[in-house]
Amino acid sequence: MSSPGADRPGGAAAGGGRTVGETGEFGLIAEVTARLAQSAAVQVGPGDDAAVLAAPDGRVVATTDLLVEARHFRREWSSAYEVGRKAAAQNLADVVAMGAVPTALLVGLGTPPDLPVAWVLELADGLRDECALLGASVVGGDVVRADQVTLAVTALGDLRGATPVLRSGARPGDLVVLAGRLGWAAAGLAILGRGFRSPKALVEAHRRPEPPYRVALELARLGATSMVDVSDGLVSDLGHVAAASGVRIALERAALEMPEAMTDVARALNADPYTWVLTGGDDHAFAATVPPGTALPDAVRVIGAVQEGSGVLVDGEQVAGSRGHDHFPPGS
Amino acid sequence: MSSPGADRPGGAAAGGGRTVGETGEFGLIAEVTARLAQSAAVQVGPGDDAAVLAAPDGRVVATTDLLVEARHFRREWSSAYEVGRKAAAQNLADVVAMGAVPTALLVGLGTPPDLPVAWVLELADGLRDECALLGASVVGGDVVRADQVTLAVTALGDLRGATPVLRSGARPGDLVVLAGRLGWAAAGLAILGRGFRSPKALVEAHRRPEPPYRVALELARLGATSMVDVSDGLVSDLGHVAAASGVRIALERAALEMPEAMTDVARALNADPYTWVLTGGDDHAFAATVPPGTALPDAVRVIGAVQEGSGVLVDGEQVAGSRGHDHFPPGS
Repeated sequence: MSSPGADRPGGAAAGGGRTVGETGEFGLIAEVTARLAQSAAVQVGPGDDAAVLAAPDGRVVATTDLLVEARHFRREWSSAYEVGRKAAAQNLADVVAMGAVPTALLVGLGTPPDLPVAWVLELADGLRDECALLGASVVGGDVVRADQVTLAVTALGDLRGATPVLRSGARPGDLVVLAGRLGWAAAGLAILGRGFRSPKALVEAHRRPEPPYRVALELARLGATSMVDVSDGLVSDLGHVAAASGVRIALERAALEMPEAMTDVARALNADPYTWVLTGGDDHAFAATVPPGTALPDAVRVIGAVQEGSGVLVDGEQVAGSRGHDHFPPGS
Repeated sequence: MSSPGADRPGGAAAGGGRTVGETGEFGLIAEVTARLAQSAAVQVGPGDDAAVLAAPDGRVVATTDLLVEARHFRREWSSAYEVGRKAAAQNLADVVAMGAVPTALLVGLGTPPDLPVAWVLELADGLRDECALLGASVVGGDVVRADQVTLAVTALGDLRGATPVLRSGARPGDLVVLAGRLGWAAAGLAILGRGFRSPKALVEAHRRPEPPYRVALELARLGATSMVDVSDGLVSDLGHVAAASGVRIALERAALEMPEAMTDVARALNADPYTWVLTGGDDHAFAATVPPGTALPDAVRVIGAVQEGSGVLVDGEQVAGSRGHDHFPPGS
């Protein structure tokens, strides 16, 4: 097997072979902070009791996620840089799904003392670079000792005068649209779980999602009536929209993209590729509802319609596994 | 031993004996959310991709902390309600130390599936009640599976037009002042660590700090030139102020409060009570510097002076253990 982080940016020399325990909390924080970049919106960055950030809209959008090693990432499957990109992406995507522009991340790191400093520095690079796509900054954090590597990421954003796009705004007659990929990350995880490392495109999709932030912000600007970051699976996340809006969402399977690489892998692994597409999370696509007649960006596909009723149907039927990802599935 | 949570508010019936694994992620979130209260500042509360919160000042203050079981709290020593109060308090105190009024918390919970639902609900009550002291709300969160109970708390606040009080503003000639208790929590932890449960006042101080938020906000209003939440220990935290401000901080031991209960316990445990007072964290007192002649609130004591130079002295000398709490002490 090739080294999982061999193709990452950032440089293997960072950290010089030291561990977190050898460097100490304050030393580690100083090294991480030195690698970060602060945007003009940051009035007080890392190093005080708290950060101070411009919130020009007079409202702030805020969301938080925990990522735990062995459950949300594996150090043998993803480089620290990739974990940083992914941890940032999933939180930035939540802010964008509200129609807001991300401004800042705060990051808590729990770590055993034997974690290499290099891992933390490359993680910081990944967080920083994903933020940079949107002009956001890592403005604060915390480092504590823990048995498992644990990342707590909070993202903040600014609405720039816009009305937040909620889950509750879908109306019968709206179109259901999708920006981004579905099932790629789930297929990539299945591949890694069987000990394979290709097709590379699917494995990479698991390691580092590429949420189409700009397209989602454009959907908000065009008047999306609801929007959601697809993190638990399309059917599950649209189920939240259907419930919050008091509507039924009817999806067309034929409208969903099914790359040949995915059908090939599914055949090889004896899996149903539609399970990945309909219930897989972690691609951080955006699903939205828009009024009919909305002029849609090229990157957006229509995948269904909003109807009177409740629940989510695919080709007119309830799908199995439609609850998507529950961190504590019944009987666990 | 009496049940550690026997005297907590909240009701032992909450949760009905179920575990987190039996209830599931979405069920648990629904039960927690039902117990919370949202202030008028909350425009979108829990249940969407992100929360939306008023930030009337046009700036937002933000800070985050991780708390890990066995390191920051023990379920056998503190009730869930107390853990919630403490987790909220330490983050709210960071916001207040900037001179800002806390508005919201976001809370990530990592938990094994066998954690009782009742524990989580009482935790939520504690978070909510500590927030209520300041008019803040728990506006969002995340629940994931983890081996250790892990809490990731982010606090947001509003400056209400004030200049943030930084660590870098102390000037020679300023007085060093203190609001709140020092060493009580450290003494309480030492007592619990030896298997004792009294004196109750010290044990309770460990279980639930009582940061004097209002007094600290008053110090900010009165023109404090710097302020810090004492979480790593007085000497360590003032060391950050001295370094950031380019000054020396000279403390007078005689000016520090030394309760008789603490000297008694120290004698019984063969410990130095001044170690608790000078290097103990977790009381979340506020240390500030103010210009001479500032009319101080009754609850504030003068404990030293700012001088030309560097570092922190106590009675003219460097103190041992002056680095305070490092989560990865050298050699760990």
